[in-house]
Amino acid sequence: MSEAFLVEAARLLGPKGLTTDPDDMAAWLTDWRGRYTGAALALASPASTEEVSGLVRLCARHGVPIVPQGGNSGMSGGATPFETGREIVLSLRRMNRITALDVAGRTATCEAGVILQVLHEAAEKEGLRFPLTLGGKGSATIGGLVSTNAGGTQVLRHGSMRALVLGIEAVLADGSVLDLLTPLKKDNRGFDLKQVLIGSEGTLGIVTAATLRLSPGIAGRSVMWAGTASLHDARSLLLLAEDMAPGLVEGFEVLPQHSLEAVQAYLPDTRAPLAGPHVWHALIELVTDDAETADRLPDIAERLLASAFERGLIADATIAASEDQAERLWLIRETISPAERALGPAMQHDISVPVEKMPAFVEAAVPRLEADWPGTRAVCFGHLGDGNVHFHVIAPEGADRAEWESGDGKAISAQVHDMVTAWGGSISAEHGIGRLKRDELARLADPAMLATMRAIKQALDPKGLLNPGKLV
Amino acid sequence: MSEAFLVEAARLLGPKGLTTDPDDMAAWLTDWRGRYTGAALALASPASTEEVSGLVRLCARHGVPIVPQGGNSGMSGGATPFETGREIVLSLRRMNRITALDVAGRTATCEAGVILQVLHEAAEKEGLRFPLTLGGKGSATIGGLVSTNAGGTQVLRHGSMRALVLGIEAVLADGSVLDLLTPLKKDNRGFDLKQVLIGSEGTLGIVTAATLRLSPGIAGRSVMWAGTASLHDARSLLLLAEDMAPGLVEGFEVLPQHSLEAVQAYLPDTRAPLAGPHVWHALIELVTDDAETADRLPDIAERLLASAFERGLIADATIAASEDQAERLWLIRETISPAERALGPAMQHDISVPVEKMPAFVEAAVPRLEADWPGTRAVCFGHLGDGNVHFHVIAPEGADRAEWESGDGKAISAQVHDMVTAWGGSISAEHGIGRLKRDELARLADPAMLATMRAIKQALDPKGLLNPGKLV
Repeated sequence: MSEAFLVEAARLLGPKGLTTDPDDMAAWLTDWRGRYTGAALALASPASTEEVSGLVRLCARHGVPIVPQGGNSGMSGGATPFETGREIVLSLRRMNRITALDVAGRTATCEAGVILQVLHEAAEKEGLRFPLTLGGKGSATIGGLVSTNAGGTQVLRHGSMRALVLGIEAVLADGSVLDLLTPLKKDNRGFDLKQVLIGSEGTLGIVTAATLRLSPGIAGRSVMWAGTASLHDARSLLLLAEDMAPGLVEGFEVLPQHSLEAVQAYLPDTRAPLAGPHVWHALIELVTDDAETADRLPDIAERLLASAFERGLIADATIAASEDQAERLWLIRETISPAERALGPAMQHDISVPVEKMPAFVEAAVPRLEADWPGTRAVCFGHLGDGNVHFHVIAPEGADRAEWESGDGKAISAQVHDMVTAWGGSISAEHGIGRLKRDELARLADPAMLATMRAIKQALDPKGLLNPGKLV
Repeated sequence: MSEAFLVEAARLLGPKGLTTDPDDMAAWLTDWRGRYTGAALALASPASTEEVSGLVRLCARHGVPIVPQGGNSGMSGGATPFETGREIVLSLRRMNRITALDVAGRTATCEAGVILQVLHEAAEKEGLRFPLTLGGKGSATIGGLVSTNAGGTQVLRHGSMRALVLGIEAVLADGSVLDLLTPLKKDNRGFDLKQVLIGSEGTLGIVTAATLRLSPGIAGRSVMWAGTASLHDARSLLLLAEDMAPGLVEGFEVLPQHSLEAVQAYLPDTRAPLAGPHVWHALIELVTDDAETADRLPDIAERLLASAFERGLIADATIAASEDQAERLWLIRETISPAERALGPAMQHDISVPVEKMPAFVEAAVPRLEADWPGTRAVCFGHLGDGNVHFHVIAPEGADRAEWESGDGKAISAQVHDMVTAWGGSISAEHGIGRLKRDELARLADPAMLATMRAIKQALDPKGLLNPGKLV
């Protein structure tokens, strides 16, 4: 049966569009974090929406499950096939054209396989920008970013992917093409199907293209670093910044002293931004698209920090004097993940709670975990402005990675997720559910929510061939 | 059977919660435009989410269809029962508490029955505002606004209702309560069910509460009126405004000379804002939340108009010198609908096309319709900045209303909708589908879109008891 399928698929997609060679497939069968390695019947790389549609019809006829894949840089194993070898990986990477870039209307229409950084560069060439960025920008694709509703460090001002998607095109489970690509600022023709597909991780349809909102180019930015005594003070600093620089706060990231020291150990050339240690550090970025505001930006930044000092919110602070200094401050932030990982095994949690509760949550959760699991160290860093931190729990020194991760580590993750749920938060703020958190979602989600998601999945993919075993 | 249902419902809801008295029900059985008058088994007015849930369970058991209703000010008959008398009207008006107003976090949580104007006033009292407004603000409810994804005159800067909803609570078809009220800035736990319910017009669930985003209070505004020779020039003026006053353009409305004269005939005290007639008029509003920008606003407005003159985009313009003058300019805009209606029978269409195509669309569609239907007059006005105009076609003089509306008028509407669809636009930009446009949606929507909507409807309301016969 799979023989017949492969013959037909090869005829449909041509030699560039299908491979069953283990060497060609290998790189796409392991997820980015190296947590899962699967097997696949074939790697299909269609070149057009019509080919995707034809392939999905073929899969429906033969009952072949499909794992859609973009840049293979997801954090939750959502794009990795299972070990059965019964699935195909459907890579969108060959569909990599920016089909329209409307400078006046500030939109770009991209095929699913366009790499984020390529879009950044294309927009910049026109004096515009696509205001979403993240560590994996060199491999993450537009289709993957839409399918996972990706976040990043600019969500505070520009929103997640959902806020930047004006239109999408997707192939549904029966192979039909849902064309919602034309951006209409207002459209109340019933259910907003675009929203249903965004963030559905390939389980309801395969995103083949998207029309995205672009922003004007940056006219000026100011990057600051401040030391605070508590996360409460950091949160007050954020509110002050939003008050004194309305509409300009693009990034507000926090890290504890521990993370700064981890980065210094990992990249020994890293200079501490401030003279002494601080319980918490905040990285603040103001950005404007407007030349006049750009002129006032240094003044706004100085007054903000002065006011924060006066109120006793910060103990020390600095403003980057050049682009180079600004980049070096951001490099510290971007190096936390690998630096913390280099310290040994750790359970990583991508969580959110209501923004105003985050300081209290961290103050409650960190000592609780460290007390319950002697020898561990809990470290939180990230997007305080979005109520989203990355909550890492580092194993006791000398712990065996495999043993700890599948034993205590697993129990620790369950406890973190329990606490987050009790605080009204989310066990996946921006990384998605994928394979990694499917069981935890089933365990913790409100039954009405879960039942509704399952009903929608059943309705739109009755044969269960779209990324089965992921998300729901 | 309906007897048993009514006895149980009366027991559940108490004397204030249920009536079958025709006099009590009458006002709620006719839609706001007076287009439909239905009948109902009862008018149910639950006082809490628990009562809504209990009632929906009861309806499910007895097979009684439910028509959810807020302020009964919808434009598409979506909240009016059919003539059969088999349905109940479920009014959310008694659930009218603002249960939380978080000033620091700038959010408000409202039960579904809170009236828009009440929320406006509550926010204002705290130095904040809820930045969505429309003609029916004195009766429209939060639940209705969420369920229809309402628009209005501030969408350009703040988005439709969807952009302002942070969380919702809804009762599903089986009576279960979907609690998504806690606002999380980032949450990627699977499908965004909130988005599925927003704009679903009560066909997938009954919205019982919502958490909404508030904005800082207005620090300053500048209202301008300009005369232009073409809609293309008006659109260029909009782009110039967005360029010279980035982030400040809150309203950009257009009207033809015909609409201005209709308003002057309807409200004889109305002074024309400019000395002579112009082919098109544009009403532009700049708004800022920031005191410093407020000081610069008059200067920004003057420079904008000066630059528009220089470029030959406008022939004449004025800046409101006081709040009173500003209000009088807006009064003209808000009076167009009743003024045009007073001229006799007209078919009204709430349409959108991609923003950049709107000038060309109007230039193509208006003469075409007037040529095809001698004696008619086509008038477009409204939210050019959103690519959304209200496209009215006025009957030939002396036409009989009933006869024209059901004959030529109907054919004209079909033609307008055909043209909009051919241009990649929407037959309902902001008013929703309801009963009014259900058949047109079925006729014109892309088959994949329609099939997907029907599959979702079937999945979430398998018995078809939630607002049946509306939307899909």
